[in-house]
Amino acid sequence: MDHFDAIRLFDKTLRNLDAWMKKAAAHAEAKSFEADVLAHARLAPDAYELIRQVQSACDQAKFAAAYLGGKQAPAHPDTEKTFAELHQRIEKCLAFLETFQATDFARAEDRKVAPPWLGGAWLRGDDYLAHVAIPNFFFHVTMAYAILRHNGVNLGKMDYVGSLPTHEG
Amino acid sequence: MDHFDAIRLFDKTLRNLDAWMKKAAAHAEAKSFEADVLAHARLAPDAYELIRQVQSACDQAKFAAAYLGGKQAPAHPDTEKTFAELHQRIEKCLAFLETFQATDFARAEDRKVAPPWLGGAWLRGDDYLAHVAIPNFFFHVTMAYAILRHNGVNLGKMDYVGSLPTHEG
Repeated sequence: MDHFDAIRLFDKTLRNLDAWMKKAAAHAEAKSFEADVLAHARLAPDAYELIRQVQSACDQAKFAAAYLGGKQAPAHPDTEKTFAELHQRIEKCLAFLETFQATDFARAEDRKVAPPWLGGAWLRGDDYLAHVAIPNFFFHVTMAYAILRHNGVNLGKMDYVGSLPTHEG
Repeated sequence: MDHFDAIRLFDKTLRNLDAWMKKAAAHAEAKSFEADVLAHARLAPDAYELIRQVQSACDQAKFAAAYLGGKQAPAHPDTEKTFAELHQRIEKCLAFLETFQATDFARAEDRKVAPPWLGGAWLRGDDYLAHVAIPNFFFHVTMAYAILRHNGVNLGKMDYVGSLPTHEG
């Protein structure tokens, strides 16, 4: 699995997340409550609400692509308040991910990745992917999924995993 | 990130999970309730309880290593009931992961991976890692983390991520 494969995995998974949000909106409508109530749901008083889980998942994907593919990440201010706006946030992130090609990641393994929160220290590109981008991306999408499941949205493992490129015979 | 890197990432993350469980046990003791109450906690009536999240995380790591590294996975029956037994389950899984070397994964990318639940179909090794092993492994560890956070255990992002191989200068 190379770095481009990882970005494509993030792309696919954000599309899955977008589909969970659609199911959540349909669930809210069926139950006659505002879907945006779910947008503010969280699993603990000091845990991120759904809005911030979605924003964070998008940012993990966006920054991984930018750092490893050598492009400037576009600014996506965390201003979303509604499901409709979160859908747009996911769309903006996907549009950025779609600008990358496999060749952008040719030197990704050994790039020095120095995000501001490391305070001047850096990680090798390969280590950034394995120790930061992948665990954190899947953390935030799974927390979003968990918030929806905890609030009664009917999601299952195939919603989480999405389509699989299987072969027969 | 090659397949061996992914197995080492699972190994590291299972050690993180084991540390969250220790924090959870300490939390229960401070609050004077049985830690094993947490073992049966779940986020929704039809979601896995903590025990099964830990078992599933272990199995995702074990089967990824076995399928991609070309070894038979040892049987680890899902008999755990307590935190102490879950710790042993994690230890057993880690012991199996530690039997692998980078060279075991030399042909992992193109191996045909045909887990029983695919009903005869198969995935390329690279696709199994990206579409099954990584998303599902991080799903179950994050759900375990979410169950503990939801029940008041004081965990933060650095507990989740663990140590980072940073460089200075």
